[in-house]
Amino acid sequence: MINVVRARWVLPIEPWQVVHDGAVAFDDDGILAVGPAQDVLADYPEATVETFDNHALMPGMVNAHTHAAMTLLRGYGDDLPLMSWLNDRIWPTESRWVDPGFVADGTRLAAAEMLAGGVTCFSDMYFFPQAAIEVAQRYGIRIMSGQVVVDGRTTYARDAAEHIEKGLAVIETHKNTPRVHFALAPHAPYTVSDDVFGQLVELCERLDVPMHTHVHETQAEVEQGLDEYGVRPLARLDRLGVVGPRLIAAHAVHLTDDEIALLGRRGAALVHCPVSNLKLASGIARLTQWLGAGIRAGLGTDGAASNNRLDVFGDMRVAAMLAKGTSGDAAAVAAPVALHLATMGSAAAMGLDQQIGSLSRGKSVDMIAVDLSGFELAPIYDVGSHLVNSAGRENVTDVWVDGNRCKRDGELTRDDPSELAALARSWQQRIG
Amino acid sequence: MINVVRARWVLPIEPWQVVHDGAVAFDDDGILAVGPAQDVLADYPEATVETFDNHALMPGMVNAHTHAAMTLLRGYGDDLPLMSWLNDRIWPTESRWVDPGFVADGTRLAAAEMLAGGVTCFSDMYFFPQAAIEVAQRYGIRIMSGQVVVDGRTTYARDAAEHIEKGLAVIETHKNTPRVHFALAPHAPYTVSDDVFGQLVELCERLDVPMHTHVHETQAEVEQGLDEYGVRPLARLDRLGVVGPRLIAAHAVHLTDDEIALLGRRGAALVHCPVSNLKLASGIARLTQWLGAGIRAGLGTDGAASNNRLDVFGDMRVAAMLAKGTSGDAAAVAAPVALHLATMGSAAAMGLDQQIGSLSRGKSVDMIAVDLSGFELAPIYDVGSHLVNSAGRENVTDVWVDGNRCKRDGELTRDDPSELAALARSWQQRIG
Repeated sequence: MINVVRARWVLPIEPWQVVHDGAVAFDDDGILAVGPAQDVLADYPEATVETFDNHALMPGMVNAHTHAAMTLLRGYGDDLPLMSWLNDRIWPTESRWVDPGFVADGTRLAAAEMLAGGVTCFSDMYFFPQAAIEVAQRYGIRIMSGQVVVDGRTTYARDAAEHIEKGLAVIETHKNTPRVHFALAPHAPYTVSDDVFGQLVELCERLDVPMHTHVHETQAEVEQGLDEYGVRPLARLDRLGVVGPRLIAAHAVHLTDDEIALLGRRGAALVHCPVSNLKLASGIARLTQWLGAGIRAGLGTDGAASNNRLDVFGDMRVAAMLAKGTSGDAAAVAAPVALHLATMGSAAAMGLDQQIGSLSRGKSVDMIAVDLSGFELAPIYDVGSHLVNSAGRENVTDVWVDGNRCKRDGELTRDDPSELAALARSWQQRIG
Repeated sequence: MINVVRARWVLPIEPWQVVHDGAVAFDDDGILAVGPAQDVLADYPEATVETFDNHALMPGMVNAHTHAAMTLLRGYGDDLPLMSWLNDRIWPTESRWVDPGFVADGTRLAAAEMLAGGVTCFSDMYFFPQAAIEVAQRYGIRIMSGQVVVDGRTTYARDAAEHIEKGLAVIETHKNTPRVHFALAPHAPYTVSDDVFGQLVELCERLDVPMHTHVHETQAEVEQGLDEYGVRPLARLDRLGVVGPRLIAAHAVHLTDDEIALLGRRGAALVHCPVSNLKLASGIARLTQWLGAGIRAGLGTDGAASNNRLDVFGDMRVAAMLAKGTSGDAAAVAAPVALHLATMGSAAAMGLDQQIGSLSRGKSVDMIAVDLSGFELAPIYDVGSHLVNSAGRENVTDVWVDGNRCKRDGELTRDDPSELAALARSWQQRIG
């Protein structure tokens, strides 16, 4: 069966264009055509047509760095300096509470929040990934499941070897599951030894998956790395063979010009997490320089404990305005660049740009409709800049992932909002 | 008649506290009591009680710097460098289109957007202020009407003298109109001469009103002032007697330590416009230093042409996260400070802190209810930080201004959303 979704505006994102009265045709195998509604309807006269008179149709937002289950710790320890936030609040709470039930419920809350807000795919890094994958399957969101590795004991595994072993088992179990992608995810240079990084480089090669990790999030981390290893963490990772096209480095707030150039040369990907970086006082990553160096750059919310919204629309706007404000150039990260960052950019950073990230023939139907008819959004002179600067996740009414409808006319199709809130409250009572 | 509004949480803002199961009692003259629901209900047993089980009740947001009618130019010329934005887009369009009809319709759109998003009062600086006041009266929002003065011809007046004359007439007409406050509003140091500033200092004194102006918004403005006058604009204003307790200076992005100290000593007020300053690449004002110097600081959206949302909730969050990210201190501008900035801070900056800005006995009922029951906002460990970091204007369900209900259960009571959108579209067709 062929479906056509027709909308007042269609933004394929790559190539950049705004099709007025556009349409997307698709079947079970993916997108068949994108273009002016007249042409698409003529090519597919038998299609079932759905029309969105007030909407912009665009690829789903891709959240390239998060810890989904941490929704259960949303706002738990706000306004604390980073180290007391981690040492006094987050880490003790995680060691007390994190188990498959926590991950299932927290990821469910995250999946609902992200789908409702137009996020169709997320790159996750958390314990008990099997539980997160099952939730993603059930609620329909696309996941890149990062198999977390820490050099030490967590509630998930007793040491690096067991983290790796469990991760490999998860990958084996789900290697053919639709809408599930994988990464190996050593937590960070300061929690993973050289040996383990070395093993993971080989495993990534063998399994043909990316390596998702935190890099240079804070100045303290860089200094600690210098103290301990005599070189900055990125240099150490480079020596270990980590810095290449498989690397997805989240945060990267503190990079020298040379480090940016190196990452560009090596073909590595970076994930910008502007809201988390501001809120935890980590600093402001140099997005315009990244883009200038040709780095594959994506956008991530980070976990809800440090954001506190899994809101890629909002973070896209912050990314764009921060780039302007810190570069002194109001034309920096213009709307087409910001929208690209949050969709194709993230997809490319995750190595998924052949499958998602734009509306184009052969890609998966990961797509959202954004209602721009509200008076808060009027008038509309430029729909692209409107999507960045005026609209928000609250304007997303319809969401498709892999052709399945996950939100319809403002309502989640696969979950019950009141159940979700109750679920979160029950954890709040236990944890709080 | 006495009304009691009871809510799951009441945040008077000043003093800082969160009253669980709190209530506010009020009559036509203003707020009678704020406190635990049990106490308030016992004191006013005959009151009509309305209960908000899932809501935080707090003072309305105060937008201390905007150009309301510019909603009609929302997103008109995004991603342009400041000078081409002004010279090629905004100013030519304004000279072609701005008249009382433009101001009435644009301000109506702004009033609806602000009221819907929990803003109960705004400080306006625009041409044809009479039209804006009439709209504010009709739709119920509180306005501080800045009588704009430019040293030259505008569509509103032919020279500074006529701007002043018209402004004084507006003040005379509305001096006893409820919910209307006044300022004199010389546009900026670079558009107003020494003589005119001198006259306005005297007039502010005589009329007992503040002076609302733009100061040090961009580095270029500071340099141009230096070139033209041999001193930085703030120093020039100080020499002219402008820098005192009556001054409300918007933006103030580029201030030296000495200038911040001077503003503190003089008792002047500053209005932080973080989103506009980022979007136009003006820079990042040093809010934490302002607060450290004891400056009365408020928060403003600026006009919709440079924001593009008149969203004080969103801008409060950006202000808080920017302060953390640029100071390196995650505890900077903690939630109580951010909430204060957007309510009492703005009210105090405008000299209205005896009437609005907090929920306390004798003040006007300028109040909002924010529904925190959504799953995107769950769980809730700390309602204060939640209002800053997780909630948004989309969660504001009920709004009172001066005791009048302007939004009820998610709907504006005095305007029709579809009419508003149509109004904006008609201007879009003419202008675009």
